[in-house]
Amino acid sequence: METMEMGMTVRDDETEIRAMAMAWSKALEDKDADRLVAEYVPDCVVFDVKPPHLILGREAYRRMWQQCLPYFPARFRSEHRDFTIAVGGDAAFAHTLHHIEPIGEPAPPGGFTWMRVTTGYRRIAGRWKVVHEHVSVPVDMVTGKAAFISDPGVR
Amino acid sequence: METMEMGMTVRDDETEIRAMAMAWSKALEDKDADRLVAEYVPDCVVFDVKPPHLILGREAYRRMWQQCLPYFPARFRSEHRDFTIAVGGDAAFAHTLHHIEPIGEPAPPGGFTWMRVTTGYRRIAGRWKVVHEHVSVPVDMVTGKAAFISDPGVR
Repeated sequence: METMEMGMTVRDDETEIRAMAMAWSKALEDKDADRLVAEYVPDCVVFDVKPPHLILGREAYRRMWQQCLPYFPARFRSEHRDFTIAVGGDAAFAHTLHHIEPIGEPAPPGGFTWMRVTTGYRRIAGRWKVVHEHVSVPVDMVTGKAAFISDPGVR
Repeated sequence: METMEMGMTVRDDETEIRAMAMAWSKALEDKDADRLVAEYVPDCVVFDVKPPHLILGREAYRRMWQQCLPYFPARFRSEHRDFTIAVGGDAAFAHTLHHIEPIGEPAPPGGFTWMRVTTGYRRIAGRWKVVHEHVSVPVDMVTGKAAFISDPGVR
């Protein structure tokens, strides 16, 4: 119990944010675009893994998911690795590695890439909401090629 | 003046974090790796724009900068766009677009790419420190090619 405010402890906040990430994972596995963005604020700012470099607003992010989800495997597992949270009073951020693994069909050569994800939260009217998300893979700046991540490594 | 704690206002916190970003920009223009990481905690976790996908610790990030800086133009201007900060009690995050523009020599075709930057801060012993940074450009997931950003757009 690091700090106490509004009757919530930092640990409670971390638990709530982890639960949000798990609900997001389940929504992804269910290919449910509405639930994927349910905890995002209407004016969220997203740096997505693919173009455009900037997505402004929950509705635009929801449409991106709607367009992408048909290309996902029929069934798959969504996995986070090293999900790390920093909580302040009414702001928090988390970083993690995320990927999907198909169920009942082979993964592509090298597997689906892991992605780096950073998420920014604000507590609004007592509930944590996502206001910012940044998803990426690294790029070789000389060749201009993506360096897909087949092994997330250990921390 | 949104909240008051430890005699600091949110506006003071934002001012301090903006000053850190300006000092970082100046350190970049000076090609000074030590100053670039001066406000990072020793165990910071960095998702850099290029491989490796994960850099653990200030010293490793400093070495990365030392290796990169010789490839920068002789003189250049460092510019942030749309630097947006969310401050909680002792946690904060910011997102922005960043690029460099050479002085006294032409930029490469299309210019130096803008990069998306998300930074996570914690207040430690009364001072804001960077604990996490995520820098990227988007990638076309089908071709595996970086989508360099020549125009940051408007918000």
